[in-house]
Amino acid sequence: MRATVLHGAGDIRLENVADPALRNPTDAVVRVVASCVCGSDLWGYRGVSPTEKPRRIGHEFVGIVEEVGSAVRTVKAGDFVIAPFAVSDGDCVHCRNGVYTSCARGGYWGSTDKAGDPIDGAQAQYVVSPFADGTLVATPGVPDESLLSSVLTLSDVMGTGHHAAIAAGVGPGDTVAVVGDGAVGLCAVLAAHRLGAERIIVMSRHDARQRVAKEFGATDIVTERGDEGAVKVIELLGGIGADAVLECVGTKESMQQALDSVRPGGRVGYVGVPAGGPELPVGQMFGNNIAVAGGVAPVRGYISELLADVLDGKINPGLVFDAEYSLDRVAEAYTAMDAREVIKPLLRP
Amino acid sequence: MRATVLHGAGDIRLENVADPALRNPTDAVVRVVASCVCGSDLWGYRGVSPTEKPRRIGHEFVGIVEEVGSAVRTVKAGDFVIAPFAVSDGDCVHCRNGVYTSCARGGYWGSTDKAGDPIDGAQAQYVVSPFADGTLVATPGVPDESLLSSVLTLSDVMGTGHHAAIAAGVGPGDTVAVVGDGAVGLCAVLAAHRLGAERIIVMSRHDARQRVAKEFGATDIVTERGDEGAVKVIELLGGIGADAVLECVGTKESMQQALDSVRPGGRVGYVGVPAGGPELPVGQMFGNNIAVAGGVAPVRGYISELLADVLDGKINPGLVFDAEYSLDRVAEAYTAMDAREVIKPLLRP
Repeated sequence: MRATVLHGAGDIRLENVADPALRNPTDAVVRVVASCVCGSDLWGYRGVSPTEKPRRIGHEFVGIVEEVGSAVRTVKAGDFVIAPFAVSDGDCVHCRNGVYTSCARGGYWGSTDKAGDPIDGAQAQYVVSPFADGTLVATPGVPDESLLSSVLTLSDVMGTGHHAAIAAGVGPGDTVAVVGDGAVGLCAVLAAHRLGAERIIVMSRHDARQRVAKEFGATDIVTERGDEGAVKVIELLGGIGADAVLECVGTKESMQQALDSVRPGGRVGYVGVPAGGPELPVGQMFGNNIAVAGGVAPVRGYISELLADVLDGKINPGLVFDAEYSLDRVAEAYTAMDAREVIKPLLRP
Repeated sequence: MRATVLHGAGDIRLENVADPALRNPTDAVVRVVASCVCGSDLWGYRGVSPTEKPRRIGHEFVGIVEEVGSAVRTVKAGDFVIAPFAVSDGDCVHCRNGVYTSCARGGYWGSTDKAGDPIDGAQAQYVVSPFADGTLVATPGVPDESLLSSVLTLSDVMGTGHHAAIAAGVGPGDTVAVVGDGAVGLCAVLAAHRLGAERIIVMSRHDARQRVAKEFGATDIVTERGDEGAVKVIELLGGIGADAVLECVGTKESMQQALDSVRPGGRVGYVGVPAGGPELPVGQMFGNNIAVAGGVAPVRGYISELLADVLDGKINPGLVFDAEYSLDRVAEAYTAMDAREVIKPLLRP
């Protein structure tokens, strides 16, 4: 079968790899129906994180279960499943606490589990899922083709945007600013809107992204960045700042912009993977009682709730996909994503 | 009248100063019944923060209102009042949001307001309170002498310990670790107990402080510090770490100990004034979904609720006062506090 393999900076290839096979009784083999490229995939692609040896890549997918191991109970052959971007056993104390991303045994697709064993990357024709019961979520029936892209977002970006909003305690009537107009930032807008935020300011200078943000419920667009962006947010919100800021980028600058845009006593929910390890200015946080919460989103816990709204047509997060590629054009998808020519490319095996 | 004046490192004096007088219609003159020395007063005393010119000091007090300005509505001559450590107008958007410490016009006792005007220090015979309605909280009648020390803690340390617990979302059944065995740390133990925490680990190596902690509801004592302390907390809590950690010191080491002691998905509530501006390691927070919340405690908003429990005898935070000095021995009180010979000294004018 064919799978995408990252060899190093700028070197992404579709290759023939071994056919999928059950390794443990808790495994499932899944035929990928759709996967996609994530902003965080670009780190390896851009060489920001080094690629020590070629590895399979991709951590967002939906698909049809082909075969399950003897111990699998909750999914079966023929089920349509959503795979959260983290593999989790569902049994450990962290999973029971809902922090699936801290699973004692799991790990990330395209990386390794806690025991050091590799986990398949998802930009491929098939994936072997470890801990299928704890990881995969079966949908009721096969979703309509028109809903496919929205269902796929529950694998990562919609759940991640939702996590930012939950971490920041967004609720009815809140004022919210979103830093970042990538797929996660746009989903954070949608999540804030869904949770009842009254005013949602998105920081964006790209027409196409602004359009999606408005479709998702953004009430204001701020094109300024950094200090100027924060000043503008505060100005739009009566000189006070936002009740909640959702940080969806992960740089030192974006986090500072978030901290500068929030009102005293407000909350920053952050899901941008910290690039280069920016540290948080505790003095500023302390003086203004700014809470900072979030992290790598335990999206598995959000899938059921968000899926219900997708299936009911209440939310349409799939709008973040503005390009579709067949798997054999995966390198083109990376190039377009890297150049910010597309918001998020969907891949069809 | 007499008031304590800080002149520089190690140089604290009781001096004759101008008698108190109303300056604005929103002022009140308060005769101090009891005040005290705070750990944060030691910064100036130790020279950690420079003293550019002599200034009145002290920010915790209770007293009897002597006289009020023409615009004051909620307190009157003869009232017994609790003064939170921050002056707040009660009107601005931040006060309405409950973030009294970010008041647009207020400031701190012994410092200046936002307009740059000095505010009296409270280690004195009298204090002129700006924004008396927004700042002072009158008690129902004059509290019994036996309750005085507990009522005084509502001015700062009990409210601050409570803020740490609230910021960390402590609730029934939680496991809690408290970093710091000063008056605030001990009050944080009491606050966590009051909020229903099931297991409360306090990190302390001082017998007297351990005794108060146990009186306040601590279930376990950890004497190890730093990495070893965190390892011990995790070991006591089934290898997982605490649901909530209350950081009540403010050093880089204490914050790191807090972050290392919390479970994935847990919360650090911090109220230790950041000394030397430690920065927070966002990578660690992100990977484990650790929320960090807290800051300078808006204690005014907590006084009514906590006062009810003090008057009912449900909590006795006054146990943190283990020494009492007359005001003319204020320099001795500083010496004893600085040497950690006492937990917290109460001052009687």
